[in-house]
Amino acid sequence: MKTAIGVDVGGTKISMVLGTAKGQILAHRMISTQTGNKTRACVLRMIEEIKILTAEGKRRGHKVMGVGVGIPGPVNRKKGIVPCSPHLAGWQNLPLAALLRKKTGLRAVLANDANAAALGEKIFGQGRGVSDFVYLTVSTGIGGGIISQGKLLEGASWVAGEAGHMTIHPHGAPCKCGKAGCLEAYASGTAMARVAVLKMKKGRKSSIKSFAANGGISGKSVGLAAAAKDPLALEIFREAGDYLGVGVANLLNILNPQKVILGGGVFQSAPPVFWQSMLRACKREAWPDAYRAVKIVRTKIARVGDLGALALVFEHWDA
Amino acid sequence: MKTAIGVDVGGTKISMVLGTAKGQILAHRMISTQTGNKTRACVLRMIEEIKILTAEGKRRGHKVMGVGVGIPGPVNRKKGIVPCSPHLAGWQNLPLAALLRKKTGLRAVLANDANAAALGEKIFGQGRGVSDFVYLTVSTGIGGGIISQGKLLEGASWVAGEAGHMTIHPHGAPCKCGKAGCLEAYASGTAMARVAVLKMKKGRKSSIKSFAANGGISGKSVGLAAAAKDPLALEIFREAGDYLGVGVANLLNILNPQKVILGGGVFQSAPPVFWQSMLRACKREAWPDAYRAVKIVRTKIARVGDLGALALVFEHWDA
Repeated sequence: MKTAIGVDVGGTKISMVLGTAKGQILAHRMISTQTGNKTRACVLRMIEEIKILTAEGKRRGHKVMGVGVGIPGPVNRKKGIVPCSPHLAGWQNLPLAALLRKKTGLRAVLANDANAAALGEKIFGQGRGVSDFVYLTVSTGIGGGIISQGKLLEGASWVAGEAGHMTIHPHGAPCKCGKAGCLEAYASGTAMARVAVLKMKKGRKSSIKSFAANGGISGKSVGLAAAAKDPLALEIFREAGDYLGVGVANLLNILNPQKVILGGGVFQSAPPVFWQSMLRACKREAWPDAYRAVKIVRTKIARVGDLGALALVFEHWDA
Repeated sequence: MKTAIGVDVGGTKISMVLGTAKGQILAHRMISTQTGNKTRACVLRMIEEIKILTAEGKRRGHKVMGVGVGIPGPVNRKKGIVPCSPHLAGWQNLPLAALLRKKTGLRAVLANDANAAALGEKIFGQGRGVSDFVYLTVSTGIGGGIISQGKLLEGASWVAGEAGHMTIHPHGAPCKCGKAGCLEAYASGTAMARVAVLKMKKGRKSSIKSFAANGGISGKSVGLAAAAKDPLALEIFREAGDYLGVGVANLLNILNPQKVILGGGVFQSAPPVFWQSMLRACKREAWPDAYRAVKIVRTKIARVGDLGALALVFEHWDA
């Protein structure tokens, strides 16, 4: 059977799997992400784990086609280099594909993680047989991947699909990217935490604080409070959902896709009002023909990071 | 030599040309656009003119490949039907491609005019050899066409590229389309006329009124006043240019194209501040990698409607 290694590099953990061309996961390894001057040691540790998974694949009699790596940030796929990742200090000018090839003997392909997730949906998920769709992930940030005319849209400099940074409010709320008014600054988990802090400072009562972990109020705190029917938390989700709907509508007006697939951590704790509000705003803001033609769905893939990384391999070398 | 007939259906005039595969125009005919119950007569008149151009092509010894028609509104290219055009009352459920085939004996292909213009740029203009670019037309409205991975992006329901109706200000200024906050409501000629009227009502002095034709203040009036250095007109162009830059930046963040080609009537009378302001805003709002990778240029095609319609034929049947 054809298998591959998928590597999902996250801000805190690196998940590695051995999986089949049908998306079945046969083995799984996990290490902590290290940055700064520990980057090289982390990458070497990652390589050791990949070797273990490769050996496991061979032991089972499978062909291991290659390694796919999803990275949180822009990646030059052709060069196989991580130029710099805003979430991974120290992962700079890292020729990861070449390193992986040399140390594991396997072909390696890198991509932005949201782009990889879009390929995961194309090969294993609700993007199967759909020539034009958008995958959008809503978590601490908002990322995206576009499948256009059957292929991943990579763009002129590997940043296509950065839908989280479309401006929906010129000179609006500050975004982590340094700009203002981005979709991410209004509809991400981080944005909801920011709004919660702001509204409580202005005197709004809420239980959100009691759900805050030691790191302070996060999108998750707002989600937990919303699950407990906290009015402010519900209001924040309603507003954020509205903004998300504006962003999705803009994608419909520009791309007119057959499907939009939404994933990401925020949906795991979001109350129903988030989805309803998103749909209502999307219908309000989208060109009617584009809204009628699209299916907006939630991802059914639980481990989209792992499967996206696997998809990179099968997309590039399955022919 | 290979030639084709290009038909550019506008709100007031229908322009028809006989042109070569290199974009050379050999003959030209023009009739007034008729709508309502005169639609059928208008289409029949159009067909007579097409026959004259076809005869002219044959007389010169050329092969006439087919007829391409650009329509202001969404068009189902596969069915060859004009479903309804907001600018052409009465042009509804019109099976124009079949009618043209029957009456002229030529193959016919229809498309939205901004999409056709994008193909015009791809075949005859600054889109030659560029796999990923956006054509954006700024006139009374804002329309667009996207070439993605070498092909026109048509979308699930033939409305891809409607960049003029992306929302850049939720619940903002009213747009002719019935929505609010669209790019077109801030950066089109119509938008500039609306802002001019609004600011003068609030007491701002300006010479714009003296440039108004009998139809009242239009984008062109603002353009003529700007050419005469009217401060309010220049301010309006600066603000509209800023909004246009936001819209272009959103396209860069989503599509990461190699090029953006701007055309349309507004540029014919726009002062330099319009372009400068657009570029400044675009740089401010775009993902840096996307801005660095793109070339933003003005179209060099004078008759993009005619050449776009011709391009439809050569794109579909030149093989």
